[in-house]
Amino acid sequence: MPRTLDLNCDMGESFGAFTVGDDAAMLDLVSTANIACGFHAGDPVVMRRTLQMARDKGVSVGAHPSFADLYGFGRRRISGERPEDLEAQLVYQIVAMQGMARLEGHAMTHVKTHGALGNMAAVDRDLAELCVRAVKAVDPGLVYVSLPYSETFAAAERAGLKVACEIYADRTYTDAGELTPRSQPGAVIHDANQSLDQVLEMVTNGVIPTTGGKLLPVEPATLCVHGDTPGAVGMARRLRDALSENGVTIAPFAKP
Amino acid sequence: MPRTLDLNCDMGESFGAFTVGDDAAMLDLVSTANIACGFHAGDPVVMRRTLQMARDKGVSVGAHPSFADLYGFGRRRISGERPEDLEAQLVYQIVAMQGMARLEGHAMTHVKTHGALGNMAAVDRDLAELCVRAVKAVDPGLVYVSLPYSETFAAAERAGLKVACEIYADRTYTDAGELTPRSQPGAVIHDANQSLDQVLEMVTNGVIPTTGGKLLPVEPATLCVHGDTPGAVGMARRLRDALSENGVTIAPFAKP
Amino acid sequence: MPRTLDLNCDMGESFGAFTVGDDAAMLDLVSTANIACGFHAGDPVVMRRTLQMARDKGVSVGAHPSFADLYGFGRRRISGERPEDLEAQLVYQIVAMQGMARLEGHAMTHVKTHGALGNMAAVDRDLAELCVRAVKAVDPGLVYVSLPYSETFAAAERAGLKVACEIYADRTYTDAGELTPRSQPGAVIHDANQSLDQVLEMVTNGVIPTTGGKLLPVEPATLCVHGDTPGAVGMARRLRDALSENGVTIAPFAKP
Amino acid sequence: MPRTLDLNCDMGESFGAFTVGDDAAMLDLVSTANIACGFHAGDPVVMRRTLQMARDKGVSVGAHPSFADLYGFGRRRISGERPEDLEAQLVYQIVAMQGMARLEGHAMTHVKTHGALGNMAAVDRDLAELCVRAVKAVDPGLVYVSLPYSETFAAAERAGLKVACEIYADRTYTDAGELTPRSQPGAVIHDANQSLDQVLEMVTNGVIPTTGGKLLPVEPATLCVHGDTPGAVGMARRLRDALSENGVTIAPFAKP
Repeated sequence: MPRTLDLNCDMGESFGAFTVGDDAAMLDLVSTANIACGFHAGDPVVMRRTLQMARDKGVSVGAHPSFADLYGFGRRRISGERPEDLEAQLVYQIVAMQGMARLEGHAMTHVKTHGALGNMAAVDRDLAELCVRAVKAVDPGLVYVSLPYSETFAAAERAGLKVACEIYADRTYTDAGELTPRSQPGAVIHDANQSLDQVLEMVTNGVIPTTGGKLLPVEPATLCVHGDTPGAVGMARRLRDALSENGVTIAPFAKP
Repeated sequence: MPRTLDLNCDMGESFGAFTVGDDAAMLDLVSTANIACGFHAGDPVVMRRTLQMARDKGVSVGAHPSFADLYGFGRRRISGERPEDLEAQLVYQIVAMQGMARLEGHAMTHVKTHGALGNMAAVDRDLAELCVRAVKAVDPGLVYVSLPYSETFAAAERAGLKVACEIYADRTYTDAGELTPRSQPGAVIHDANQSLDQVLEMVTNGVIPTTGGKLLPVEPATLCVHGDTPGAVGMARRLRDALSENGVTIAPFAKP
Repeated sequence: MPRTLDLNCDMGESFGAFTVGDDAAMLDLVSTANIACGFHAGDPVVMRRTLQMARDKGVSVGAHPSFADLYGFGRRRISGERPEDLEAQLVYQIVAMQGMARLEGHAMTHVKTHGALGNMAAVDRDLAELCVRAVKAVDPGLVYVSLPYSETFAAAERAGLKVACEIYADRTYTDAGELTPRSQPGAVIHDANQSLDQVLEMVTNGVIPTTGGKLLPVEPATLCVHGDTPGAVGMARRLRDALSENGVTIAPFAKP
Repeated sequence: MPRTLDLNCDMGESFGAFTVGDDAAMLDLVSTANIACGFHAGDPVVMRRTLQMARDKGVSVGAHPSFADLYGFGRRRISGERPEDLEAQLVYQIVAMQGMARLEGHAMTHVKTHGALGNMAAVDRDLAELCVRAVKAVDPGLVYVSLPYSETFAAAERAGLKVACEIYADRTYTDAGELTPRSQPGAVIHDANQSLDQVLEMVTNGVIPTTGGKLLPVEPATLCVHGDTPGAVGMARRLRDALSENGVTIAPFAKP
């Protein structure tokens, strides 16, 4: 049985003279890139360069919008904005990336929210629906990348958007299907073999093993690969190779 | 002989909680709005609101891109960037505004550069060509708004873009057809009647009267109306009324 | 019996070309100014000018630090930062303002937190203690301005700081002594006479009348006067005049 | 004859989640740190951490102020600001750093301007005097770090400030004593031995060898060591070791 998985990585997160990650190397390994839109990181020069590299390497691209928070890199949890204001911010980021991608001849395929926004929306129905509205307003053909068992996944499906189910190799899952919070012991899988096993279990058997011993059904479309940690490129390469050796084809969940 | 003139005003220059000008009032008076793109002013919420108001009032909209300089409101003269980087910044601003305008159902018609960027490009051939390239890269159907007798006007024409010739009511012109620098005496026309006479001369007779007594040929398409000075709305209204009384029809130089 | 009250107003909230409020006019009316430190508003030019005006008019000055959030004007609720990071941000703002004030020959007397930070700290003991630590780290002689019946008031007292109890004229109080949330009916007092009566009750009788009919003891030191609403100067003048007519002397709670 | 030289390095140039250089390693090698003030890079958290590390390692600290230009990392050339506004920006940066340093128990010794501001001031008398005024306004005891044969050196001396003469190991000098512009061939010395020889010549013989074959008198106080290039730490270590082996003592030009 042929099995296929996308590898996605957040990138384009440099800003001006500040450099984050090694996007050129990572683009040789992943099949999908989520590109920062200038609100938590990224700028027009970085966007253009990242889009061009992704196009040349055949990597699918999407927008990676965030709260307006350069200082906090989109990791600060922000509330108290009017919903319509936050929605306008997301629409702006998505439509700007779509326009930049079009100009580079590489149509944008999807949206994945960044950092605190993504974390908050995953468990907040109103915020999830706001994010989904923003994506749909720009283009109802865009794929929404989301964790399963989340408010965003449900909201995107209700809105009729295609959803790409995202899984993690190095995070454990609660019985509710959510990522174990990093504040709890056992949240992060540090062993490479264990990580690989978890991914293969999800891809091959279509189930998420949980910390409580359950097996939750899942149809994984894309695996999140970290790009901004030390050794990120090496880890991504080993994961990619191991997946290939285990018969998993790496391919984007959506093509431009 | 029917004469037509567009009135254009820079707007959408509020940012977050900071409010600039009275865009709602000004949109009742002008036929074209140049909307800030978030680099010297403006933000997604302001953009969207300004686009919606302009659409509802039948005012044509364009992008008003700038150097990346919120603190200096785009008025600081900036150099030393790599040309391709500045070009990417301009492309980004224009394509983002175009995307936002499209989503609001109000197609963008033109581009007018802001502040120091516009002033510098008017007399710098390389910078003028860079600005023109950015506009053309996004959409060769966009109109380039420019002072006559400038490097930008010439560059836009060479590139095959439509150019809307912009005139000023309250500024005098040198024999070279340039605005008299504000640092020189007589640069600004403070008398309303004299301002009106200058505009009528340009519109009716197709000539710019210069400080040296020359009459330079001109085909004015649009008159710049200031929006961020005290009393701006009242002045714009008086100018519009006076033009109408003198048989000038106010209409946009381009319709979506 | 002589009664004294300080009037404080947030100011110096312009930024670059963006103007907020009429600080010059307000400085003729209030006895204490809380000056923005560049994080939600304000910049070095605005700071210096505001400090100079306050010095020349004999108005006491303090720092008005905020979350790092220019776009949100410090009104967005931000969490998820490391406490020591937020503390460093506050220390920076306070020490920078103190330094600027010293250079203008007008020693800073106090600190009042801004917007969402102030609101959140008022009901969050950890955050209140963090704010108090930052003030004390810069200078234990600084006065902490705080609502009564709040975590910040208690934390400042525990830390041995002098606290200036701040009251509102146009807000009602719950039985717990907190401001009625704006989301609830009756939160704002729109009638000028009723506002004045509330202030006089607090100043003269030393009690806060609550929405539940209680009278909570209070020793008001300073009344918050709004500076960034339309008609703010006129309202401040009427309030000041009415207080004077009712025998209340307007004077700063602390002198440089 | 004992010879002494300071090694200075720009640092504290990280911002939020964006990391620049390896300050901890560099602080083991240099004797003086010029710390970014948040205008081109740096933030309160970075400032505090850098000050603490410098204090613990006995490295002298100074302010490294810049144009207000985070996006351009202070490398964009900016003009058109009112001089008093730019001066206020510099005063702010210097006094804020001085305050932060004082709180960490490590008094600030000097100021070195950053990037485009430094380059422009070196050849612009008005701008040089503006920078010097800002330093002197904060504290006339601060040392001004400047290239020799520059407007800044002259302005600082005229103002009565102590000046620390800064030299470069990897840049050649014109007959006017200025750095050969990077746009010209031979501007940068790529050979480590040649770099070392140039420094030893300057330190031992008190002369700058120029590209035209002249020997200009110089009294070098401090050598600029780059911190944000790949391999910066290794290069700094080799340079330091080579200087030591040649009898040069590394010590700060000023002690707190």
